[in-house]
Order: sequence, then C-alpha cells, then structure tokens
Amino acid sequence: MGQVRNILFIMCDQLRADYLSCAGHPSLQTPHIDGLAGRGVSFSRAYCQSPMCGPSRMSFYTGRYMTTHGATWNGVPLRVDEWTLGDYLRPLGLRVALAGKTHMAADGVGMARLEVNPHSERGTLIAECGFEPFDRDDGLRPGIGEPEEHAYERFLRAQGYTGDNLWHDVANSAERSDGKILSGWQMRYADMPARVKEEHSETAYMTDRALDFIEEAGDEPWCLHLSYIKPHWPYVAPAPYHKIYSVDDVLPANRDAAERIDPHPVYGAFLNHEDSVNFQRDEVRERVIPAYMGLVKQIDDHIGRLLAALEEAGRLDDTLIVFTSDHGDYLGDHWLAEKELFHEESVRIPLIVADPDPAANWTRGNIEDRLVEAIDLLPTFVDALGGQAQPHRLEGRSLLPLIRGRSAPEWRNAVISETDYAFRQARLDLEVAPEAARGWMLCTERWKYVHWEGFRPQLFDLENDPKELRDLGGDPAFVDVRIDLNEDLFDWLRGRRTRVTISDEEVARRTAGSKKRGYLFGEW
Amino acid sequence: MGQVRNILFIMCDQLRADYLSCAGHPSLQTPHIDGLAGRGVSFSRAYCQSPMCGPSRMSFYTGRYMTTHGATWNGVPLRVDEWTLGDYLRPLGLRVALAGKTHMAADGVGMARLEVNPHSERGTLIAECGFEPFDRDDGLRPGIGEPEEHAYERFLRAQGYTGDNLWHDVANSAERSDGKILSGWQMRYADMPARVKEEHSETAYMTDRALDFIEEAGDEPWCLHLSYIKPHWPYVAPAPYHKIYSVDDVLPANRDAAERIDPHPVYGAFLNHEDSVNFQRDEVRERVIPAYMGLVKQIDDHIGRLLAALEEAGRLDDTLIVFTSDHGDYLGDHWLAEKELFHEESVRIPLIVADPDPAANWTRGNIEDRLVEAIDLLPTFVDALGGQAQPHRLEGRSLLPLIRGRSAPEWRNAVISETDYAFRQARLDLEVAPEAARGWMLCTERWKYVHWEGFRPQLFDLENDPKELRDLGGDPAFVDVRIDLNEDLFDWLRGRRTRVTISDEEVARRTAGSKKRGYLFGEW
Repeated sequence: MGQVRNILFIMCDQLRADYLSCAGHPSLQTPHIDGLAGRGVSFSRAYCQSPMCGPSRMSFYTGRYMTTHGATWNGVPLRVDEWTLGDYLRPLGLRVALAGKTHMAADGVGMARLEVNPHSERGTLIAECGFEPFDRDDGLRPGIGEPEEHAYERFLRAQGYTGDNLWHDVANSAERSDGKILSGWQMRYADMPARVKEEHSETAYMTDRALDFIEEAGDEPWCLHLSYIKPHWPYVAPAPYHKIYSVDDVLPANRDAAERIDPHPVYGAFLNHEDSVNFQRDEVRERVIPAYMGLVKQIDDHIGRLLAALEEAGRLDDTLIVFTSDHGDYLGDHWLAEKELFHEESVRIPLIVADPDPAANWTRGNIEDRLVEAIDLLPTFVDALGGQAQPHRLEGRSLLPLIRGRSAPEWRNAVISETDYAFRQARLDLEVAPEAARGWMLCTERWKYVHWEGFRPQLFDLENDPKELRDLGGDPAFVDVRIDLNEDLFDWLRGRRTRVTISDEEVARRTAGSKKRGYLFGEW
Repeated sequence: MGQVRNILFIMCDQLRADYLSCAGHPSLQTPHIDGLAGRGVSFSRAYCQSPMCGPSRMSFYTGRYMTTHGATWNGVPLRVDEWTLGDYLRPLGLRVALAGKTHMAADGVGMARLEVNPHSERGTLIAECGFEPFDRDDGLRPGIGEPEEHAYERFLRAQGYTGDNLWHDVANSAERSDGKILSGWQMRYADMPARVKEEHSETAYMTDRALDFIEEAGDEPWCLHLSYIKPHWPYVAPAPYHKIYSVDDVLPANRDAAERIDPHPVYGAFLNHEDSVNFQRDEVRERVIPAYMGLVKQIDDHIGRLLAALEEAGRLDDTLIVFTSDHGDYLGDHWLAEKELFHEESVRIPLIVADPDPAANWTRGNIEDRLVEAIDLLPTFVDALGGQAQPHRLEGRSLLPLIRGRSAPEWRNAVISETDYAFRQARLDLEVAPEAARGWMLCTERWKYVHWEGFRPQLFDLENDPKELRDLGGDPAFVDVRIDLNEDLFDWLRGRRTRVTISDEEVARRTAGSKKRGYLFGEW
C-alpha cells in the first residue's frame, strides 16, 4: 500500500444504501463490494445532496450544495462557471475521465454568451462537467430528440445485434417466445432476461471501458469516474442475473397504513404518481425487486473483475477507490417509488472509501457512523492528492480525518439534502409555482426535519422511529424541536459559498489593507 | 412625451438620500434634480442591496441580491457568468455604454478558465460588467499598482496640468499659498478649493463625456450609465463649490451618547475605525460637510446642463431618466463615517425615475413611499423597453406599476440589504473568520432587523424611533418581533434565484413531461 496517485470513483445509479451484503441485506450477496469495504471505511450515514440524479451528481462533481450550484433537476444545465472535479484535479496532475453517466446538461446559453466553442477541447470539458468523455453514456436513450447512437449502441451493432434503438430493443427489453420484444419500460417483464448477452450488457460494457481507460492511461496518474447506470430502471437484468433472486428474497415493504392517513401534502401528492401507485402493489415489488437485486449482483461481479485487474496491475496500492450511488430507490417503501423525497430509502447512499495510504491501515473494515455528505468526496480527493483546501468554493469536508484517524474534533452535526419538484406532476396537483416547489431536509443524529415551501414541515424521530413511519411535523408536542431545527437550517443556508471568486486566504490577506493600497480615506 | 427608447441611468457615489432639496435638506439647493423629481417619481424608501460601492453596484447591474451574485466587497470579482445590464438591454436593441464608475473587478480566473480573450469585444464586455467602456473611470487612482493613466488624466494633461498623478495632484488636492500640494486624502483641507478648474473637474468632465456619447449615438437607441464618483471622498470641491456652503449649513449630527454605551459588537468595532473616530469630532464634520454639499451642488448644476442638452435634442421625450446613488455616507451620524452598516444614512438611497411615457403623466412629481430596492431598476428597464420579465435571474421587480399606476396589489413588505465586513479591521478586532463576517438587514415599514453572524441581532423601531437611536436587538420585550423578522429573513433567503439556466416558463413547459420525452418509468 502507498500514497494516493489515482482515483477510481465508482458510482451506481439508484442503488439503495441497504442493498449490499456488507450493509446487512440478508440475501443479496455482494462479496466484491464487501471486500472493498474490508479494505476501506464504510459510511453508514452518508447522504446525497438531492435524491435525484441530476442535482445529486452536480453536487458530487462540484462539491457544492444543490441550492448553490443551481442545477436543481435533471436537464437543468449547470452554469458554465461552476467549477467541477476536473478543475480541481487536473492542476494536481491527474487525467480526469468519464466512463458512463453524469446526467450533465451543458449550459449552451452560457457557453454562447462567453463564446466558448463547444467543439474545442475546453468547450468539451465545460459541456461534459469537467470530464474527458472517454465514454459518456447516460444510460437512457428513449430515442426522442436524440437521433445519434451512443458508443455503447455502436458496440452492440458491431456484435451483430440489430434494431432501431439497440439500447431499448436489446439491452433493456426482453423477448417473448414468439420473438415479440417486451419493453423493459413495462415493469411486468422484470422477471425475464434481457435480450442482450450478459457480456454485452451495459454493466459489463462500461466495466470493459474502465479497464480500457486504465490500460491506456498507463503510468500517467488519473481519476476515472466509472458511473454505472444500473440498478436504475428499466429494471431488466441479463441472464443469469434475472433469476438469481426470487420473490423469497423480497423483504417486506417498510410501510404502514397510517402513513397514508392525512399525509403531508407533498408526500400525499407523490403517493399519487403512477410509479408510486404501481409500487404500492405487492405484485410489482415481487416482480421488480429480484431484478433490481440481480442488477446489483451483476455490478458486484464486475467490480470483482475490475479489482482483480487493478491488483494485477499493481494499482490497488496507489488508487483511492470510492464506491457510492447518486441516491436510493423507494421500491414501494412508504408506498412510494423512485426517489425525490427524504426517507432514508431515497436519500441515504452507500459510501465506501478505500484509501491505499498506510495512514488508513487502522481504519480498514471500519463502519463509520458520523454524518457525511456527497459533497465531501471532492475535498477528500483534493486532500488525498496533497492539494489545497478551497472552502470558498467547496462546501464539503475532506473525509480523510475520519479515514486516517486524524483529529476531527468538530465534525458536522447535521446533513442537508434538497429537492426541487417543480418538474413533477405533484407540483401541478398542489398548485405550486415553479420557483416555490422546494423541500429542504436537515438531518441530525436523531432528527430528520424537512422544511417544505408553503406547507407544514415533516419531522421524524430516527431514534424512536427508525423506520420513519410517524411524521411528527404537525405534532404540537414537538414544536420546540422543529423551531430549533428550522433555525439550524437557516444557519446552514446563510453559510452558502457564493463569494467564489476570491479565496478566504486572499480575503484575509487583504483585510484592513486599503491604506496599504493607497486608499487613504478617513484621515484628518 | 412618448415611449421609452433610451435610458439615462445616472448614479452618484456615496450621496445620501437626504442631501437634496427635494428630499427636504434645508439649505442644500438642487433645483435641477428637483426638476427631475417633478417630471418623475421620487422613491422615499429606496434601499441599496449593500451599503458598499462594489457589491451595491453589482446588485444594480445584475438585478440580484449580494448573496446571489457573490461579489460581496470592493475588488471581489463578479463571476464571469453573472448576467449584467447589457445582457438584458442589448437584445432589446440598445447600445449600452458607461461614462464613469462601476467598481467592477473582472473575474480573470473565470475568464481564463473559459478561454475568454480579454481583448476581444466579448471579453471587454465581460470584464467591464456588460458596459461598453465609453469612458470607464472609477474615480480613484492611488497610483499603487495602476501605472496607466485614465482618460481623465490624459485630458487633464492635454489641458496643460502637470504632475505624476494628476487625479491626485490636481483634481483631488488643494494648494497652499507657497505652492505646496495639500492632499485631498487629508480631510482637514476640505474647505479649500481643488487645484483643478471647475470645468476640468471630474464631475464636469464626465458630464461632457455623457454629452459626447449622446451626440455620437445619434438616432441609435441607447442606455448610458453616467456614473459620477462624487460626492464620494476625497472631499475636495473645485471653486466656487468649495465655499458655497459653510459651517452654518451643517446640520446637527444624528447621534446620541447612549448609542455608545454597551453597543452592539459589530457597531462597536466600526466605531473604532479611524474614519469614524475622526468623524466623531465636530471639527471634522464642520470641515467636510460643506465640501460634500458643494460637490452635490456641482453635480446638480451639471445635471441641469445635461437635461438642457437632452431637451434641446428632443431626447427628454423618449428617455427614461434615473437618478440614484450606490449608498449613503454617515458623515458622523451615529458616531460613524463612511457606510457598510444599516442605518438609514448609509443604506437608504436617493431614487428618482422620470418616465417619458404618457402613462406616467399622473404620477409626475409624486413621492412614492413603498419599499423599493436597487435591484428593481434592471427589471424596470426591461419592462419599459417591452422586454420579457426574467424572474429566474432578476430578483427585483419592475417599478413601472408604481410609476404608471398599473395595479401592484401585492407589493413587497420588506427590503433586504447585506454587508460583508471580512475585509475590514472590525473583523480582526472581533476575531471573526473571513467567511463569517456577515450582516443581513430586513427592513419593513416599521421595523429594521439585522441578523449578525455570531452576534445578537439589531432591531430598530422606525415608527417610534425614526432616528434609530435605540437598538432593541437585545431587549426581551421585543423577542416576538425579532423571531418573526428572523423567520421573514429565512423565507427571503430560501427564495434566492440560483436556478438561472432555465426560465420559469421553461420549467412549467417541461413539468410532468418526462413521458412525452420517452422516459416511460413506473409503468406496469
């Protein structure tokens, strides 16, 4: 083991924190990810900054909260002068590349205003969220407005697959005995194998691409973001992963009839979304969850392949490896599907950091319960590579003190996550204006408080109600708790870093310096 | 009178709202500005977004609060992708130019990152806050780190003046009988005339430049920002303006001995600044204030000249004229000098808007008492020119409903101003970290509340204590008032517009549209 030289930043999409064997899932076995956990630290209370792909990822990549970076939902462009991972790591000598998904929407208007040529090297980096797009693949191609095939589809075509939209027709559909294509968009087919062979599936392909990159990079230091689309929908697994798990492996839903009685208005509106209504049925859970587990199992196997290759190349000794996800998946818990709200199933993420540095030896295999956030990763990377902390932009904290046992006396006592449901049917049902469809979660060791614009707050007591089945947001007995947490949220919000063009050190250097610069005001 | 075609946006620097005859000053006569007020609407409760040149101006020019645009003090660059006035007005067909001061600091790092060539036309606009720099002159040239002469100095040299730093030696210094130059930085010389002739002084020069621009623009629609440096320090007026006013015209200071007893910590720290200590002495007020008044009187005369020229050119009929200032000047009130804190003397600004549109006829000469903010001007301009409101970026509101008597049923009930004292000695004295030196004012019709990071709040009852001599911020009798105002401030802060890359209309258009775009998630 040695100093950190490379970073392998693995992200899954929509992988719940509790769907790993090292996180306690009783039947899903993920030995390779468990092995990574054994080499590193697992964070049991890691939270995404927004339980939605786009904004969550923009927080991972910018190191800033959603309200700060402003890309609040899928398809909302990240403003052109938000710094991203590459801006921090390239000056430290790393090649920074992507294999897989970012959900980045380029700020075309901002680029045009500044006359940034999107076809230039710089323009490509800006449009690709700072990553060299070794193989950008957002994993979804409905085919509407996106005529061009992705590299993965060209790969499928080269393997002899045929069809109009290979992503859909081959990788994310099943086939009836008579040859009819059964779309993976329909969850009823989740128990059938994908038409694609396992070795040509998205997870296998992207792992291959990661290995290609690592080989190509050779001795040059690198940061590779290997970003799997799975186990995100369409919930279709290639054989044999479609049938490794069965209805017997489906855990009971975490839900209670009382949750639906006089629910919080926003929660109530999400209960009515089609995906939630479907996941409220046992039949759906029983069909989908085994496929979801199979997709996780498949990822685990490919991570095993990846780790073996790294070991062979000697890269395990100088590569910091992160395994995480952008958010969770309700899978019917709390009568919901998808994500976007703030129950643990949605907002808590798996996070394992395996640090090769000998200073981390004594924490290997540890489970760390302190509260951490997605935005902590970027400062961690900068710290591990010996770069300078840049708190005037980076709103997270390096995790190295927790990993290397350096003192971290004043760790945070709350995490934040935010949601913008402006783009969702729930907003229309609630008659909320596009700019006011916001929720802000502040979660401490014990309490989870959610401030909703225009509605009463939610409050859960994680100590006495760890399953979050009783919303205390309107209970008069907890008014003092809510007032305190609301004040904490205000404190947090006032601390957002928008003064980004000058470092705190530079501010300190200039403090009380006007006269040195010749501005002799106020003299008699 | 007719439709708005041009905009003349006149700004003074450090001109208090109450130092105009139309605002009730008993001896300072400003007939030309009064005349403008007679043609338009005077706003008696207009507030700057930060009582400091740089951040205040960046709010005027971006239409956004200080915490949103992030350029929180003088010299803090405005991030490269903040839109400014020119971005909104050029697409409406206007030439947008500057004569005078902006206090813009270009975001050189941001420009370099995006490979924006600072010498290109685009780069110049970005670096100059969106203005075509017809004559950029920030009005201060200490000479340290700024070897190059400004256009104004070249003008002085062409008139035959000599010296190393003509801005200082000629325009802002006096002369002893033996020829020794007496620096205007020393306030003790404020009763002496500047060495420069009145017709060559900064105010005269910049008015000439405005007239040059208007002539050059001809029939092309324009927005000219005529931005005077005066009556900002150095407090030196050219003859005869140095002696129009005397000690007899100096109003008693608005201050009370009780203010200095157990003062609020931040206020207390500012009391100890050298400029405040000097202005606490009557001798200083008596020497400086007549010069300050003379400088205002001089501006008034030149505005008279400008208005006469506009009238002659027929431009009064199609030009919206704004007269305002970036902030006030304590001038010894509350035992303070300068600005940066939130008493009315510092944070309230003069604001007159003369709208040529016939729809404004019935409000001409009105005094409007509703609460308005500096950020309202840019939306007003866009509105007057028939442009589209862009509330996803512009945080202010068009004033046209107040000027043209359109209905404005739900006008705001509070204004906000912010301060960042990270760069000031006060921060060091209070042992506050650079990122935590913030104060946030929320002012309603009756109450002025200031939240200070790390200290108790301030509270003034403007109804019962209009002179703001009794800080109720620690008075237990007002705890409920403070709680309510603090909550209002939190409400305001949550509403900041950081989702700037997509309009609210576009959000609405996309709402509940995922399936239309082919993302068929959640179907059974």
